[in-house]
Amino acid sequence: MKIYRVNMSKLSFTMEAVPEEWRLLGGRGLTSAIVAKEVEPTCNALGSKNKLVFAPGLFAGTMAANSGRLSVGAKSPLTGGIKESNSGGTAAQRLAKLGVKALIIEGIPEGDKWYCLHVHKDGVEIKEENELLGKGNYEVIHTMTSRYGENTGVMTIGQAGEHKMSLANISVKDPKGHIRSAGRGGLGAVMGSKRIKFITLDDNDGAGIEIKDKEKFKNAAQVFNKGLLSHPVSGQALPRYGTDVLVNILNEAGGLPTKNYRYGQFEGAENISGETMYDTIMSRDGDPTHGCHVGCVIRCSQTYNDKDKRYLTSGFEYETIWAFGAGCTCDDLDVIAHIDHECDDIGIDTIDTAGSMMVAMEAGLLPWGDGEGMLRMIKEEIKEATPLGRILGNGPNFTGKAFGVTRIGTVKGQTMPAYEPRAVKGIGITYATTPMGADHTAGYSVTANILKVGGHIDPLKKEGQIELSRNLQIATASLDSAGLCIFVAFAVLDYEPVSHAIIDMINAQYGVNWSVDDWFNLGRSVLKTEMEFNRAAGLTEKDDRLPEFMEEQLPPHNTVWDFTGEELDSVLQF
Amino acid sequence: MKIYRVNMSKLSFTMEAVPEEWRLLGGRGLTSAIVAKEVEPTCNALGSKNKLVFAPGLFAGTMAANSGRLSVGAKSPLTGGIKESNSGGTAAQRLAKLGVKALIIEGIPEGDKWYCLHVHKDGVEIKEENELLGKGNYEVIHTMTSRYGENTGVMTIGQAGEHKMSLANISVKDPKGHIRSAGRGGLGAVMGSKRIKFITLDDNDGAGIEIKDKEKFKNAAQVFNKGLLSHPVSGQALPRYGTDVLVNILNEAGGLPTKNYRYGQFEGAENISGETMYDTIMSRDGDPTHGCHVGCVIRCSQTYNDKDKRYLTSGFEYETIWAFGAGCTCDDLDVIAHIDHECDDIGIDTIDTAGSMMVAMEAGLLPWGDGEGMLRMIKEEIKEATPLGRILGNGPNFTGKAFGVTRIGTVKGQTMPAYEPRAVKGIGITYATTPMGADHTAGYSVTANILKVGGHIDPLKKEGQIELSRNLQIATASLDSAGLCIFVAFAVLDYEPVSHAIIDMINAQYGVNWSVDDWFNLGRSVLKTEMEFNRAAGLTEKDDRLPEFMEEQLPPHNTVWDFTGEELDSVLQF
Repeated sequence: MKIYRVNMSKLSFTMEAVPEEWRLLGGRGLTSAIVAKEVEPTCNALGSKNKLVFAPGLFAGTMAANSGRLSVGAKSPLTGGIKESNSGGTAAQRLAKLGVKALIIEGIPEGDKWYCLHVHKDGVEIKEENELLGKGNYEVIHTMTSRYGENTGVMTIGQAGEHKMSLANISVKDPKGHIRSAGRGGLGAVMGSKRIKFITLDDNDGAGIEIKDKEKFKNAAQVFNKGLLSHPVSGQALPRYGTDVLVNILNEAGGLPTKNYRYGQFEGAENISGETMYDTIMSRDGDPTHGCHVGCVIRCSQTYNDKDKRYLTSGFEYETIWAFGAGCTCDDLDVIAHIDHECDDIGIDTIDTAGSMMVAMEAGLLPWGDGEGMLRMIKEEIKEATPLGRILGNGPNFTGKAFGVTRIGTVKGQTMPAYEPRAVKGIGITYATTPMGADHTAGYSVTANILKVGGHIDPLKKEGQIELSRNLQIATASLDSAGLCIFVAFAVLDYEPVSHAIIDMINAQYGVNWSVDDWFNLGRSVLKTEMEFNRAAGLTEKDDRLPEFMEEQLPPHNTVWDFTGEELDSVLQF
Repeated sequence: MKIYRVNMSKLSFTMEAVPEEWRLLGGRGLTSAIVAKEVEPTCNALGSKNKLVFAPGLFAGTMAANSGRLSVGAKSPLTGGIKESNSGGTAAQRLAKLGVKALIIEGIPEGDKWYCLHVHKDGVEIKEENELLGKGNYEVIHTMTSRYGENTGVMTIGQAGEHKMSLANISVKDPKGHIRSAGRGGLGAVMGSKRIKFITLDDNDGAGIEIKDKEKFKNAAQVFNKGLLSHPVSGQALPRYGTDVLVNILNEAGGLPTKNYRYGQFEGAENISGETMYDTIMSRDGDPTHGCHVGCVIRCSQTYNDKDKRYLTSGFEYETIWAFGAGCTCDDLDVIAHIDHECDDIGIDTIDTAGSMMVAMEAGLLPWGDGEGMLRMIKEEIKEATPLGRILGNGPNFTGKAFGVTRIGTVKGQTMPAYEPRAVKGIGITYATTPMGADHTAGYSVTANILKVGGHIDPLKKEGQIELSRNLQIATASLDSAGLCIFVAFAVLDYEPVSHAIIDMINAQYGVNWSVDDWFNLGRSVLKTEMEFNRAAGLTEKDDRLPEFMEEQLPPHNTVWDFTGEELDSVLQF
């Protein structure tokens, strides 16, 4: 394995050996280690001192199920702290097959020219790019697929990334040529600041990956695979209804944040539920289930067609549907699907874009529930980078400051996703304390709080939530380093052989002798690295808090957020 | 003396005795003490938990020369830390004559109605206000003067404050009915968040102030007064040329920040110099010298007429002229005077508005030097609160984020004023470390660096700068608490009897027995209170740094900013 390093100031490329300290790191563990080691924490995230790092996980390119997530890391222009955002798609596996442990992009070119990168077995070509500037992600992927063939990997930014908006994401071509995204934290703006429109990946004749003990790996991978398929959540609910199955579940639990976090239930929930979505997809000849990367056995994604049975969007997730739906009180699934398509094409994170829309509705720029209005703002303002579009495209805090709105549901500037902290208290702990800013995937306490996976902890009470979030944050940091999809966690939590299979795969692939402790120490170490970066960047424990308005009672349970600062500060002390 | 407290949530007023701990505080010392004691440091600056505090200085209403500055304090929506901004005008003396030690405004009204306050001897009336909403400060002052008479004090916000922009200031009626401003840190936005358009002050039959030993006070005040008039800076240069005398001095020294801090000299300097300004004023029947408050003996202000000899602006300061002039490479004094008038009327800080314009020029929104373009943006965008106006009106960092510009000359979000830190290193120390964000008045090291007042320290070298800034920051915090104009410092620094006169006045007025140490301990204590608030608000030592680009060499001396973090962290350790 090797490191590919591109310096955009010098327009140069170098290939480097992997330092020993990084050999057993991958995915988030590696992006965070590289950012922490090489990026000055106080630098401007859009300046020449920031670096953008792509890293496949420890198991990328192997037969391990659901191991094809791509981690992208940098200092975040949204949170001001370290950021790892991961995505499905085909890029991680192609990098792994090229023997590339990490692709590091540093510097900013002189002048104002734009570039694209072409990654292959001999290195990285840096080429001037003009044709696709100003174009959306779908066109970039389509054009590059035409140029280089179906098997080409693509990582691209849309118009938002070109304009360095803090909501800009990095889109990754999926196996069907659709879009998956490293969505959160503005990594697309970092790529845009380096004036790279897209990166293509050709894994032909790649060095491939080494597995020290293939037989042992194969056996462990089979146990792992089987475990995922036998769990009711990853084996049945997610493949059928996708993540949107959660609308009814959270609404029932009173934890579906509604109208900018005013209520825990949404009267239009049924219209945007996973069940409604499934029926709609089926009636329009869509596909209710496909995987975001080759080797995914859960296949929670889908293809959602419009009324005329033409492709509209895919990778249409619960959090997106919640955000523009209950969050903004819009119950029109079709308009939300249109919005999802536009967000993918422009390259903006759906959760934070909806966060901006909630603030815009507070400011009176749009009526509550106006789905068409949101779609119009996204297409006519954000995509066109008008002044209003630049406000919205820089996130909810930015929009709030522009319009004098103070009811803003963010932590570290990042929007709290689809689970109400006052009714699902374990997730509130994660939102407050993860180094990433409010992020449900960083420690998905919805498991024990709502889904009764890995035990049950009363979501309305404080007891047990700190330990729950802490343990999940550690486990997630490990999974993110392995490049495993977060949804393997259901089986990991409930079936002991599944977690052992992960350790067995590591030992077999890398020729080491890890225990379960070593596995969790990896996660602890990743979190520690990230927290240290954030402190050095100037974030403090004051940033590890939920918004002021969480003091208000949330219907229907009328609970409040009642964790003290000291309790929150204890979460990641280990 | 008493405290007037207005609760805008309850629309109620209470009169309170002055706690003993606040008896020997005034001005900045008192606003900072009240904010630190009563405002939750992590609160949203535009939310209901912030408080806005007005306090005259310790000598307000007495015969002490230049003692009529008004301090305004709150948590700043611009810097995120504590803020004191002080202003000339007639308000401080009226509050003092009413026996009001501080006016505290807390809470935010339900609903969306706007209000005005009328302050008089029996308390504060809270009245609904509709007529003057959307109007500029000149119209508010004119209307209130017509309604209540010449002697009425007025504190008002323009359109920017109504829209809660971070650059919004609070304007104060001066003795000629013109405008002085508590300019920096967005205090007008805090007033706007409380939906107060203006505050009128009627000091008829006020309780007045008590002076324990009138004879002793009078003698000391005479020494003080005489000292100010005998110093060449406060007795001659400032009365004749005003603060704009500094254009040629700083240009000569290579410390006039030009084109967004790219150079230390501006080729158009002569056209905007104090000498040119004096000649222009004289040729148009303007007034080159008047005082911003009754009792000012320095009288550095002026009335600047247009080509047709009609009033255009006043209080037209060096920093404003530098900011839109050399900062934005505009050498047209008339257009800058127009801009100054508009900024006063809309109620925005000139230094930070120019900071936004520099960033707008970096982004290509305006050509460099386009004075008419800046005027147009201020009148058509900021005043009208268009989306672009809301971007510019929230300051340089906000504008930079909106347009992806990283060359931004701010500390804690506040623009570095008219003295280049690489060529006047003592002022750089102040910009980096004062709790206020970049603020030349917080520790005006230009004295010993450039003006050779209070000794001489080479402005291009590091030696002696930390001690210089530290001592000036302490002394300034004391002066700001006394309500004394910063320009008394020239005489204080050079003539020992002048500093003793200040102590004598305190002892005579308050019946205490302060030493010089007690006087400086006041300043130390104010700074300590402010720094503790900032740390509790989540600011860290990472915020006590100059912008990244200060590493570049600055022509003509080709010096760089070379203080380490440790050196900066030592500045306010005492």
